[in-house]
Order: sequence, then C-alpha cells, then structure tokens
Amino acid sequence: MKKRMIYADNAATTKLDAEAFEAMKPFLLEDYANPSQPYSFSRSAKAAIKAARQTIAKCINAEPEEIVFTSGGTESDNWAIKGTAFVYGDLRATLTTQMEHHAVLRACEAVEMLGFPVVYMRVNSEGVLTPETLRRYITDNTKLVSVMYANNEIGSIQPIQALCSVAHETGALFHTDAVQAIGHCAIDVKELGIDMLSASAHKFNGPKGIGFLYVKHGTPLNPFLNGGAQEAGMRAGTENVAAIVGMATALQKNCSSIDVTQRKMEALEAILIGKLKTESISFLRNGSTNHLPGHLSLSFKDADGEALLHRLDLMGICISTGAACDSKSTKTSHVLEAIGLDESFAKGTIRISFGKDNTEEDAIAIGENLISILK
Amino acid sequence: MKKRMIYADNAATTKLDAEAFEAMKPFLLEDYANPSQPYSFSRSAKAAIKAARQTIAKCINAEPEEIVFTSGGTESDNWAIKGTAFVYGDLRATLTTQMEHHAVLRACEAVEMLGFPVVYMRVNSEGVLTPETLRRYITDNTKLVSVMYANNEIGSIQPIQALCSVAHETGALFHTDAVQAIGHCAIDVKELGIDMLSASAHKFNGPKGIGFLYVKHGTPLNPFLNGGAQEAGMRAGTENVAAIVGMATALQKNCSSIDVTQRKMEALEAILIGKLKTESISFLRNGSTNHLPGHLSLSFKDADGEALLHRLDLMGICISTGAACDSKSTKTSHVLEAIGLDESFAKGTIRISFGKDNTEEDAIAIGENLISILK
Repeated sequence: MKKRMIYADNAATTKLDAEAFEAMKPFLLEDYANPSQPYSFSRSAKAAIKAARQTIAKCINAEPEEIVFTSGGTESDNWAIKGTAFVYGDLRATLTTQMEHHAVLRACEAVEMLGFPVVYMRVNSEGVLTPETLRRYITDNTKLVSVMYANNEIGSIQPIQALCSVAHETGALFHTDAVQAIGHCAIDVKELGIDMLSASAHKFNGPKGIGFLYVKHGTPLNPFLNGGAQEAGMRAGTENVAAIVGMATALQKNCSSIDVTQRKMEALEAILIGKLKTESISFLRNGSTNHLPGHLSLSFKDADGEALLHRLDLMGICISTGAACDSKSTKTSHVLEAIGLDESFAKGTIRISFGKDNTEEDAIAIGENLISILK
Repeated sequence: MKKRMIYADNAATTKLDAEAFEAMKPFLLEDYANPSQPYSFSRSAKAAIKAARQTIAKCINAEPEEIVFTSGGTESDNWAIKGTAFVYGDLRATLTTQMEHHAVLRACEAVEMLGFPVVYMRVNSEGVLTPETLRRYITDNTKLVSVMYANNEIGSIQPIQALCSVAHETGALFHTDAVQAIGHCAIDVKELGIDMLSASAHKFNGPKGIGFLYVKHGTPLNPFLNGGAQEAGMRAGTENVAAIVGMATALQKNCSSIDVTQRKMEALEAILIGKLKTESISFLRNGSTNHLPGHLSLSFKDADGEALLHRLDLMGICISTGAACDSKSTKTSHVLEAIGLDESFAKGTIRISFGKDNTEEDAIAIGENLISILK
C-alpha cells in the first residue's frame, strides 16, 4: 500500500489543477497547430492564446497587451533585469535587495559583469525593504528598482506600492518578482503602479515551463529572446499553447478564491503553531507578520534543518529547508543571512508551505510528527 | 460532419506523438514534485529527467551531460549566439548565413548592437553554404560560426561536417541550428565535430515549449538564463519535467525510424511532383537535392503564394508560404532573397512539408487540389 503523502512544499511547486489539465489537453492532442500560421486549423490555438491573455490580464488588472508569455519566472526575471539594462544607452544603476530570488540576483550579477552598477540593498530583520531604506539608496542614477513581491523562503510581503512610488520619484523603473505571490495574494498592477511583474505558473497550480512578464504600456524594454514575430515582437518562439491555456485556467481559479484560501491557510498555520506552542517547543518564526498565506519559516535553535526534512520525509511529509533551486547547496541561505538570523537558528530552519489541497489533518500531522522529532 | 483535414505543414509544427503524451501525463498529474527537492517524492521526476537526458544524448551520439534543456529552439539559438559573444573577453566576430532562422539572425543583430561584429555570409542558389565560401570569410578574428543544419523554408541541408572542419582550422567554435533537422535526419554530433546544436521538440512530434542545446564538453559558453543551480548551473529555472520526458520519448521514436520515414517521405514527394509534371504544371523546386525528407518548396511563376495557401485551406489542406514565425509579414522571405530567386517566382512560393502521419492519399489530394487551382 502506498503511504499517504502530505505535501507541504507548495512554495517549491504546486500540483497542477485538474481543470487546468483538462483545458490543456485539446492543445496537446488534436489542436496542435502552430498559432502563427494563417490557415483555419490554427484559429482555435490563436483564439485560446488571446483568451488566456485576457484572463490573466484581468486577474491582475492589466491590459491584455501588457502580458507577455515566457518560459517561467527565471526567464521573466532575467528579461526584466537584462532587458532594461541596455535601454537609454547609459550605465545607470539597478537597485535590488540582498534577499531576492537567485533568478534576480544572478541576472543582476550578469549585468554587473557588463559594467552596469548594481546595488544590493539591506533588508530589515523581518525581511522587509522599507520605503525609507530605498529612499536612502536611490539616486538620479538609478535606472531600475527590482524588489520581490514576497520572499520565497520566509514569506515576507514587501510594501510594493510605497516602494514603487519612491522609485518613480526619481524616474526609475520598478520591477517586482511576484513569482511566489501571484495567485495567492490579490495583486492589482494599476493600483501598485509597477512597470514590470514576473510570474511563474507552476507556483499557482499551473503547469511547469510557462510564466509571463507584465510590461506596463510604454515601459522601455528590449526583447530578451530574439527571433520570430510572436508576442508582438517582444518574445520570439512558437507559443506553448497548452501551457498558456493551463496557466490562465489555474490563475483564474486561484484568484477567484484568494480570500477563502487565505482564511483556510491562516487556520492551518494557526493549528501548526498552536501544536508547537502547546508542547512548549521553542522556535523562531521568520519573516514579517504580513506574509504569504500558509507560509511558515520556522527556526529551531541548534537543530539541523536537513535532518528534520529527511526525518519528516520518512514520515511521508514533504517540506523544505530553503529554495528548491538551491537544494544542492548546504551553506546558509542568503535570505536568512540577509535578515541577520543567528547561525544557531539558521541551520535549524525549515519551510512549511501549505497549499489549497492541504487539510487540517495535514497541519495536525505535520505538527505531531515535528514534535516527535524535536522532543 | 467535420471535414477531413490534411496537415502538410510539419515544418511549422508537428502533432504530439501519442506515446509522448502518455509519457508526459504522470508528470502533469500525480508526479508533480519539483525535481530539485531532496525528499523522496521528487525522486521519480529526478529519475525521469536523467533518463530523458540519456535518451536524447544517445539519439545524437552525445554524452548526457552535454544536453541542456531549454524552452525551445529560439532560446537555444539565442543562448548559443549570445552566450559565446562574451567569452574570452574580446570582440571577435560571429559568422552566419543570410538564410538562417530569425532566432539566429535577430540574436546576431542583438550582439552586433553591443559591438560584436557579425558577418552574414552569402549562400548559393541552392541555399547551401559551401566550405569554400566559409573559407573565404573566416579569419583568425572569427569566434563563432553558426550555420543551420537544414533550412526551414527550402529544406537544403548544409555540409555541416566540412563547415565545422573549416571553422576549427582557425579555432572558431561551430554552432548549428538543427531545429528543422533533428528527428528527421540522422545526426551524430561526434562525427560532425560540432560544438553546439539547437533543437526544438515540437518539430519532431514532441511538445511545444521545450528544446535543448547540445554543448560539447569544454565549450566556453556563458549561461543565458541565470538563477538557480538547475542543469549543472548552466540553465536556471524549475525543470519542465513532463515536457522533457515527452521530448525524449518523441525523439527516440522518430530517430528509431528515420530510414523508414525518409523512404516514405521520398515516396510522397515523388507522388506530388509526379502529379504536377503529368499535368504539365510548370514550377521551380527550391533548395538543394540534399534536402529535408518530405520537404517541398515550390515556386509557381506569377502565382500568389498567399492565395494558394488560402484556397488550399478552403479545401482542408494546411500548407505554408514561409516560416511560421513570420506569417504576419507579407514581404518576400529572406531565404528566397538569399538564394536569389526572382520576385516573379518568390511571390508564388509555397512550402509543403509532409510528416510521418501523412499518407499517399494526402499527397495525391494535395497534388490534385493544387492543380485544380493552378490550371
């Protein structure tokens, strides 16, 4: 008999929504036309892409033409960073934070190598970049400010609207890596005022290998993938029709129940935290109180996060120590370093990230199993 | 009743192989783990990626570590061009041809904008770059030679092995965009001696949105998508597990029957050409005699290719005028210009590209319908 698995690593990836899969199927099977072709067989694919673009735009209050499909969050982040570096033909700086996802940090390092200055701003102990801090760093020489919407390791949500205002005061562009937040937090790009936003479908119950970049009308941005005329000339390559359709279905579904899911996530968090407290397990909860729904970064002094992960794995529970993309690295996470977490806590850190499929029983089971290991 | 459709635009995209879809399904549904995570749930995804890499490597006689997964041919081409420009820290030149796919041409233009010289070499009237021509262009200042394996509009296959030898004589790297050829022509990267090769799954009955770049051991190449540690640090981003598995299944299947399919394709070509000749339809067949199996680029003097396409569409037949990625453009194709085709023929050009699902009846029907329009 297969052991029941509890999946609580939804920040690493999520299960593809069943309706999203059904929506994808026709475009994986019979409707396989290249949407750029002019014959009638391609009409259905073309129409599906158009509808998906409208759906996604509506979810974040953008215009359809402002949504450009990419292969995922990493491409979106690389594009935003590298695609703005060369605009205006000057060497003005990029400002970002020390706790960004590596897709932003490494892309920043790549443009630094080409001579563009990049400043990695400090965040506070809650993993938040305050508008006051940004104001101290920003100058007339700042071209782009890139700050993630919510951190993927500790869940802290940034004051994006206020940060964007500060960026715009000096004429800088504002990009946010919203990979971890979109589909889980209500995001209105017009209200936030941002110029670019990165998203990845597999983080909101869509398929892997697809994402998008929101690019506000008039934002100066060079194409990153050059070639064919797809995506209004902004992103070449045959459209991944099925994945685009799956992404739109998943995002719409998640966005239509953000409030309900959020309350459910808060309940699951409360159960788990309650369990630990009842048993007098001492821990630190990292990040700010304004955090991603269902996201818990917990540090146990002098514990070993890796060992906790593996022992929970033996109990059929999937959780994480840090970011999935750096699971091979055993050194302290750059995010925990950025918030100044003491090494004795940093080493004993795990990330539990609930998703819409998790139940109260899951939260109880994780709590009990965790306690049995820690006691 | 739905009209029977004849799909003869396999150079634009192909139907996903049914076995490839079945192989993908588990990774779209129950096996959704992020393969970079260390718990046991991710083992199956990790193993599937490893197996897919081995399968693909074997198909082209490469080592598994030399296969890096990308989002498709456009990314692979952009990576090869842009990822080599900055290596060695000099401004040495890239040589390519005038008839490359736009993913190569536009990527070359992008590096030109950054100060790297690019030379667009002339091809002969058959759409072939001869080794003698390359020898006239190449200098000690050449860093990279990028020549497509087979042209996507006229099907001409290039003398890659000989061109690669010429490139290596002066120490230049050699990249080939094999998007149109792989899975249709037997390719042995070791025998060819090439340093990099671009591939896209949807051109060989795999899914859209996935491809790979073959990178020979020791080839100096900068990452193009920076971020997480995936793909041995060469290409960041959560692995598109299902698509990777589908690509490997499709490639293996196509490669295992290349000879049989090739003979079938030759038969279909012969039927169609025979039909046209029997009815004394005058036409030019573009490209070289060494061409992609099942690929016909036909020019009818003073005809209108667009009109032919649309009239055939009304008859339920899907063919093309040029590259799918530029179907919005109505100006003469850069490939037909590169081979010096007279405008009176260029305007009346169509591309018929058979695939493994096509039958003799399809070839006959296309011939008859085409004749009925042209007569």
